[in-house]
Amino acid sequence: MSKIDAERMGVLSNDRVMLRLDDNRVVTIINISSEFPEGHLGVYREVKSRLDLEEGDILQISPVQRPESLGYIREKILGERLTPWKLGAIVRDVVERHLSDIELASFVTALQIHGTSMEEVEALSRAMVRSGRTIKFDKGIILDKHSIGGVPGDKTTLVVVPIVAAAGFTIPKSSSRAITSPAGTADRMEALSPVDLRLDQIKEVISEVGACIVWGGSLDLAPADDLFIRVEYPLSIDPLLLPSIMSKKAAMGSTHVIVDIPVGIGAKITTRGQAEQLAMNFIELGERLGMSVECVLTEGGQPVGNAIGPVLEAREALETLAGRGPEDLIKKSTGLAGTLLEMVGENDGQEKAQKILSSGRALEKMRQIIEAQGGDPDKRPEDLAVGEHWVDVEASRSGNVLWISNRALAHLAREAGAPGEKGLGLLLHVKTGDKV
Amino acid sequence: MSKIDAERMGVLSNDRVMLRLDDNRVVTIINISSEFPEGHLGVYREVKSRLDLEEGDILQISPVQRPESLGYIREKILGERLTPWKLGAIVRDVVERHLSDIELASFVTALQIHGTSMEEVEALSRAMVRSGRTIKFDKGIILDKHSIGGVPGDKTTLVVVPIVAAAGFTIPKSSSRAITSPAGTADRMEALSPVDLRLDQIKEVISEVGACIVWGGSLDLAPADDLFIRVEYPLSIDPLLLPSIMSKKAAMGSTHVIVDIPVGIGAKITTRGQAEQLAMNFIELGERLGMSVECVLTEGGQPVGNAIGPVLEAREALETLAGRGPEDLIKKSTGLAGTLLEMVGENDGQEKAQKILSSGRALEKMRQIIEAQGGDPDKRPEDLAVGEHWVDVEASRSGNVLWISNRALAHLAREAGAPGEKGLGLLLHVKTGDKV
Repeated sequence: MSKIDAERMGVLSNDRVMLRLDDNRVVTIINISSEFPEGHLGVYREVKSRLDLEEGDILQISPVQRPESLGYIREKILGERLTPWKLGAIVRDVVERHLSDIELASFVTALQIHGTSMEEVEALSRAMVRSGRTIKFDKGIILDKHSIGGVPGDKTTLVVVPIVAAAGFTIPKSSSRAITSPAGTADRMEALSPVDLRLDQIKEVISEVGACIVWGGSLDLAPADDLFIRVEYPLSIDPLLLPSIMSKKAAMGSTHVIVDIPVGIGAKITTRGQAEQLAMNFIELGERLGMSVECVLTEGGQPVGNAIGPVLEAREALETLAGRGPEDLIKKSTGLAGTLLEMVGENDGQEKAQKILSSGRALEKMRQIIEAQGGDPDKRPEDLAVGEHWVDVEASRSGNVLWISNRALAHLAREAGAPGEKGLGLLLHVKTGDKV
Repeated sequence: MSKIDAERMGVLSNDRVMLRLDDNRVVTIINISSEFPEGHLGVYREVKSRLDLEEGDILQISPVQRPESLGYIREKILGERLTPWKLGAIVRDVVERHLSDIELASFVTALQIHGTSMEEVEALSRAMVRSGRTIKFDKGIILDKHSIGGVPGDKTTLVVVPIVAAAGFTIPKSSSRAITSPAGTADRMEALSPVDLRLDQIKEVISEVGACIVWGGSLDLAPADDLFIRVEYPLSIDPLLLPSIMSKKAAMGSTHVIVDIPVGIGAKITTRGQAEQLAMNFIELGERLGMSVECVLTEGGQPVGNAIGPVLEAREALETLAGRGPEDLIKKSTGLAGTLLEMVGENDGQEKAQKILSSGRALEKMRQIIEAQGGDPDKRPEDLAVGEHWVDVEASRSGNVLWISNRALAHLAREAGAPGEKGLGLLLHVKTGDKV
């Protein structure tokens, strides 16, 4: 809106206005520009589609009161505990875009400073589930695996999912793309097959092969989460970690979830004590939401395997499924898969997982998943195209690798071009403890 | 920037980028739109003028690291006290527009929750003064008057300034326009004369008549303040009240300042205890900044005088200067003016102020100020054009006015058209204690 029109209406940037066309109305937050022509309005795409607008339509615009949820955000700033009803109102207004970035940032900052009680965490999780769509599969038991992240090169999901599915269980895995890392699970899987599936396509894949590895971004599962992340990311705070993760799992109808908590210098969680506290919270929140949750503390001080970058990691995962993977990746994958199997009643989980991997049944299952998602199941690791140019970095003197910086490697891999160019990244010749 | 270009560059909304044209460079925060054409950039007006850009210029763009000040904001979130150096870095980055609304909102929320020590308040004030321009008048003693606001119809400044100036003292008053109220002091004065003066014009007015009442918005005095207010206002929090006010006073070179703290139901400060705490903080901060500060607690539970709205209030102020004003406005004005006079060594301040008012010398001085600022000094109160249409609201039954809602009156006056249409507003026929 033009500055002159805004002054006439008595609205400021970030004030809320109602737009009306015939019987349709929508509340939105206003941006004011002195460059914008008087008597005209430009609208967000969401508003355009909600009002079914066309160029030249004449709109009614009027200022509206601040939403009630803003009062609840103020209560949180003052340090009060919020009721489920109030948290629900905040999440609803976040999803409806009735709260500005300023208000959202203030809310997550207040959550970060004052903390959240388990009642609040549960209420936030439930509100986030209600804020979007949910999936119902025709299976009693739905498994899932999640890592809180922070470790570059962690392609474990691409190995765990086919092992668990090969054992006869259902595991519909929705995953994310990289935001600040060199590769997310969705980026890795995309080197092997499409990952941007619609809900009905996912259901079909699951009923066909029992597993999928898809991108969750367009599924509208707990969409509030993505809106909170938008403001958490620039602040590097994460007060909604638990509800963010668990609301997505609940929306997928998961019954048994294993959470991987990497611990170590350079990981998100640096001490065992913190990790155990977080694990207890995951388990309690799971109980409250009717899910069985177990947590595994894993090595987080260095990358998993040797490859970093979408295609390089997909290649390493395929090699691992084919029996030629790095030891640490095999151990981590069979450990997580084994724990999941034990959660649903199997004995000697890790041993079983190892057998499924060694026998080639996991690779066979992965090929089925790739095919069901629309990829080429016959691609061998060496068929995946990686960058043409490379540089070998040699140590300037000999010694032992004492410590690896996750952050520096992630940064280097991104400088090399990952994840924008899928074939680019890093391969580690040595890991912690190795001689150079 | 277009979404495709942003993905290629690996930047997200609110990330910082550097723009370069020849040897000029500027760091700015990026907005991403899927509607924006690939290969093109749209820039803020500030960027355009900093880089001296023309349509069609070719720019270099590259991502830059997050500024250090973001780390200090995180420290504040964690509850740490910040050093003057760190607070200075934050204020500098605010003014340079290196921090996004999200980051700013998080900072003011953290300040609100954790509070600020007097050392931090002093450091913030000094940093805010350094962030903009300062004025130096050729006078040893510079008086000023400030109200923390919140009471509609408070036109006291328009009476205090001419009284003090008529007593022979220098009082360059910079004031603000209404944000959410029906009138700010600058809006009121604008009914009598121009208020948007340049610094050199202000100096001239002061050397001519010893006083001015101008709009401070375009003077670039402590500009960080306005940027903080942009995010504080939607959150209805005000953690920077003290440095905001006092940095403006310091930038004006004030040596003696009286602060009006209205107290009452419906005012910003509702209890005497809060008001006294605030007053002590004002006085201490003044000492630290080398200013003599006194605070006066005034009635804040109802409007001052009877008029609400820019022209109606200017009219009432002129009538008061002409000896026909409402009792409460006269008492408040002579009280504040009297205290200021006593701060600079006069005896029996209020009595003197009353004499200056009754003698017509204050009105004469006001006419000089109006003329010096470019207005018509001969305008009588009845010459000021107010709205043509009116409605008298009668009470539906008789009784006594026990209580007046500041908020409701401010809202009504704005609904009536103030301050957008300067001549519109309300006139109160009764005040607290009156019979209806």
